[in-house]
Amino acid sequence: MKMLKKVEKNKELNSFKTSFPNSKKIYIKSNKFKDLKVGMREISLSDNEIKSLVVYDTSGSYSDPNIKHNYETGLNQVRHSWVSNRDGIVSSSKDELKFLTPSKKVKPFPKLGKNIFKKNKGDEITQLFYARNNIITEEMEYCAIRENEGREKIIGDKFKREDLVTAEFVRQQVAKGEAIIPSNINHTELEPTVIGKNFLVKINANIGNSSVLSTVYDEIEKLVWAIKWGSDTVMDLSTGENIHEIREWIIRNSPVPIGTVPIYQALEKVNGVAEDLNWEVFKETLIEQAQQGVDYFTIHAGVRLHYIPLTIDRLTGIVSRGGSIIAKWCLAHHKENFLYTNYEEICEIMKTYDISFSLGDGLRPGSINDANDTSQFSELETLGELTKVAWKHNVQVMIEGPGHVPMQLIKENVEKQSKLCGNAPFYTLGPLTTDIAPGYDHITSAIGAAMIGWYGTSMLCYVTPKEHLGLPDKNDVKIGVITYKIAAHAADLARGNKGAYHRDYVLSKARFEFRWRDQFNLSLDPDTAEDYHDQTLPAEGAKLAHFCSMCGPKFCSMKISQEIKDEANKGKKEMSKKFKESGGKIYL
Amino acid sequence: MKMLKKVEKNKELNSFKTSFPNSKKIYIKSNKFKDLKVGMREISLSDNEIKSLVVYDTSGSYSDPNIKHNYETGLNQVRHSWVSNRDGIVSSSKDELKFLTPSKKVKPFPKLGKNIFKKNKGDEITQLFYARNNIITEEMEYCAIRENEGREKIIGDKFKREDLVTAEFVRQQVAKGEAIIPSNINHTELEPTVIGKNFLVKINANIGNSSVLSTVYDEIEKLVWAIKWGSDTVMDLSTGENIHEIREWIIRNSPVPIGTVPIYQALEKVNGVAEDLNWEVFKETLIEQAQQGVDYFTIHAGVRLHYIPLTIDRLTGIVSRGGSIIAKWCLAHHKENFLYTNYEEICEIMKTYDISFSLGDGLRPGSINDANDTSQFSELETLGELTKVAWKHNVQVMIEGPGHVPMQLIKENVEKQSKLCGNAPFYTLGPLTTDIAPGYDHITSAIGAAMIGWYGTSMLCYVTPKEHLGLPDKNDVKIGVITYKIAAHAADLARGNKGAYHRDYVLSKARFEFRWRDQFNLSLDPDTAEDYHDQTLPAEGAKLAHFCSMCGPKFCSMKISQEIKDEANKGKKEMSKKFKESGGKIYL
Repeated sequence: MKMLKKVEKNKELNSFKTSFPNSKKIYIKSNKFKDLKVGMREISLSDNEIKSLVVYDTSGSYSDPNIKHNYETGLNQVRHSWVSNRDGIVSSSKDELKFLTPSKKVKPFPKLGKNIFKKNKGDEITQLFYARNNIITEEMEYCAIRENEGREKIIGDKFKREDLVTAEFVRQQVAKGEAIIPSNINHTELEPTVIGKNFLVKINANIGNSSVLSTVYDEIEKLVWAIKWGSDTVMDLSTGENIHEIREWIIRNSPVPIGTVPIYQALEKVNGVAEDLNWEVFKETLIEQAQQGVDYFTIHAGVRLHYIPLTIDRLTGIVSRGGSIIAKWCLAHHKENFLYTNYEEICEIMKTYDISFSLGDGLRPGSINDANDTSQFSELETLGELTKVAWKHNVQVMIEGPGHVPMQLIKENVEKQSKLCGNAPFYTLGPLTTDIAPGYDHITSAIGAAMIGWYGTSMLCYVTPKEHLGLPDKNDVKIGVITYKIAAHAADLARGNKGAYHRDYVLSKARFEFRWRDQFNLSLDPDTAEDYHDQTLPAEGAKLAHFCSMCGPKFCSMKISQEIKDEANKGKKEMSKKFKESGGKIYL
Repeated sequence: MKMLKKVEKNKELNSFKTSFPNSKKIYIKSNKFKDLKVGMREISLSDNEIKSLVVYDTSGSYSDPNIKHNYETGLNQVRHSWVSNRDGIVSSSKDELKFLTPSKKVKPFPKLGKNIFKKNKGDEITQLFYARNNIITEEMEYCAIRENEGREKIIGDKFKREDLVTAEFVRQQVAKGEAIIPSNINHTELEPTVIGKNFLVKINANIGNSSVLSTVYDEIEKLVWAIKWGSDTVMDLSTGENIHEIREWIIRNSPVPIGTVPIYQALEKVNGVAEDLNWEVFKETLIEQAQQGVDYFTIHAGVRLHYIPLTIDRLTGIVSRGGSIIAKWCLAHHKENFLYTNYEEICEIMKTYDISFSLGDGLRPGSINDANDTSQFSELETLGELTKVAWKHNVQVMIEGPGHVPMQLIKENVEKQSKLCGNAPFYTLGPLTTDIAPGYDHITSAIGAAMIGWYGTSMLCYVTPKEHLGLPDKNDVKIGVITYKIAAHAADLARGNKGAYHRDYVLSKARFEFRWRDQFNLSLDPDTAEDYHDQTLPAEGAKLAHFCSMCGPKFCSMKISQEIKDEANKGKKEMSKKFKESGGKIYL
């Protein structure tokens, strides 16, 4: 917990602007929408052939040196003009949040009194509705431009992008339900992103206090830290009495979609007694969060009463917090899950603000032993049913997935989810491929995450080294995000995304040509790469050297290989040609 | 570099004896061979049902409190009586290493003058020869006992081990060439291990100085550190003028098989000029290392002259050190690789001491761009051919594999290797599934390693966070080893190994029952797990608490789920039964 003054806090948040060496913020303008521009990061290189690489940038204006950020006023509202001009959306200035009990500890965000957007009765305003009606929104255009990562000039046929994403393609995918753009009309600070199996694999970072730790600024700092390293969305999993205020601070400072699990706050309202939960308090919580601008809600509507007995013989029972709360309620009252019985009314709330469902997997396995069991797949069937109901209401949906799954059972999860849920985007936690390494579960799960991403998952929820042990701090958030960027990128490569492939190409070219600084700067974490290099060869000259401390100058294979290549390029090209012509048999 | 006195060094090495909490060294005796006993680690638990778990232990007598280790006298020679009693093995006391130039900087290991074992002319003494002739050796028995990890009492049918390994099965696998037991008859300190696709997946850690860094004791410390965390073999990749002495210190202190790349030392002997290499100097180096007790040699005999032009159009050329040295020699002389042309004579040396081949992949890809290309697979074809030649000589063989491979191309590597090399064990470096994360290549490669292990690879060569950047230090060795234990264990699970599965079961049971200390102690790294837990809840009482700081007491799903389970076990068992009887339809 940091005891910084306000000025110091803002200084810290603004320090991200210069944090990637040789990188600058650039904006790519839309041809379709006036004033719409998408922030990207351009990495300059000391290469004569490839002068720079442009990469996806989730850090919003935090990385724009021309915009000074003040966390007490929040981000510029880039989406405000898009939303406020739309038919069917009305704006109200009266405070509809009168049912809130203000926190005694955390002061409210200064601009809390701003107008609230909602849809007019009888109108439809979700991205899914627009997509189905052939309307391309600013959000779709924004997502399309962002997807074309690695848009630098083409180097030979290898990098000709046949897979460039258009806004029309985004629209088609959203219309089919195969992609979603989580974008609550009240999150006007949002830079939208598209989540779907035909786009770049996205990652989510969880932040949030618990009743044990943390303060508001710490959470904003974790948010900004997560998006600096590349998190595409952030979930606020806060619990405790200050939950509403903390969320407001986070949303107003977030350029990425924010997700929550509303049952946590509902439970706070009934003093933590699961049995005392009821539909009214839950509904109130949904509306309250909807009006703040939460972009997607995890709703555990698939935990049906008759599935609960199936979990009794499990090794680790129910490990989803939301799932266990609902299960307890169901058993106490011996009634069907009130999220299931009131699902259509939930859809009404979701469509009023264009909030996306993240249908929670309350019965996901919590151990290798429980993977792919009847409880898990029974719930998945219900999630498939609920997906279709949401679609009927023009509400966007993604489906949450496990958990703990050994490698040989991962594929089945994707196939079943895809089939049962009509190709709605899959959003998985890991999965962890073994239980035996607490302290290293970012790694046990990165293995599963990369694989499930390759098989077709659209978003990967990160796991930090503290999983199963404690609350992640800022450094854990960084390690979790970078580990999941690796998994997502490996999946993008395996899916054949040429933009992703280009980054590997350019980095490996820098490596082979001993452009050390370019290698560092193209990596996911330039500071760490440079630091590791400098631990053994700190001199500035070593950044130009044709070797490193791993092998020393005499044994550097890259150096020798360079020499071979140079030699070959001089005299041997002809020989190689001859060899190839002869079918590789005669040359000796 | 540590400046410790001799006493302090030995104290440090002996400190590993007590380093895993609640663990003790146990020995499992052979029924077949008198005096043969296999060290394992038993973890005691505070569980009424499962009192302890026995796990594989690579740390030799370093973890035996009854044996005091002195690194200047080396380990007890557990294998000495096995080897010295065998027909066909002769022992010579004269110093055959007269061709050595002693180092000026590193003092020789004090016991260097010990007898040297070699086979009698006309006799055959390799494990492959014995296996083919239906002889079960002590080495085979030792390996079989070790393989049965998780041998604790059976808990229900789930853990009935139909897959228990017998010495006869080890023999059959070695006879077929599908498994090897690297065990030079001069490495009498060795505790043998079996490497093959029908056994637990093994991992290797690379240590070794380069010309830039390191001292002798640092390398011993890295060795002991690597095996403490679970490395199954260790490769000494030292270069520089003290290479021979450093190796002697390492082998005499190593209970695990030691591998080397002899071309590194041969190159030292010709002052680093690849063109000056020749068969005589290489042969001398092989014999010198063979007599020291190196268990497996990486030999780049597959880098044939006519493959070299194929690498010219690659993005990253030749990235194997050995491969590039050979390529340079071939091009300079325009001659076929002398390792290829003298391969039969190399086999003669290998069989004299029972050294295993690790046929090097000198043309492995060094970037995603170069994966699975013609250069790589051409060499693999030659390795297949060389495998058969080695087998003709009764020499054990494994095959080295890539490198950098995107996920969708990994499987092809295993399938091709298996087919071309007659199911000889595959030993892969990673593979890295993306190039863009220097500083995190233990993770980029753990993804590929777990997958390739699942697909059938027998041993995984670790990659540390310093890969591509610098020489790993002690902490990097630990991170690399633990990361690869995760990958290997995830692969064991995916292959259906019940012993492996049992460890996950027992750990998850401890987790669900809030036995925090058991959870820590069962993990790969108990200290780190406990430390992470204690960062937010340091009090001793928290180790008994039914929650942690992640969710706090009110939201702990495991706690709620426990309550549900308890309740259910009381009254609802009947309901569950009814529900199941009704086919899951009526209960509501």
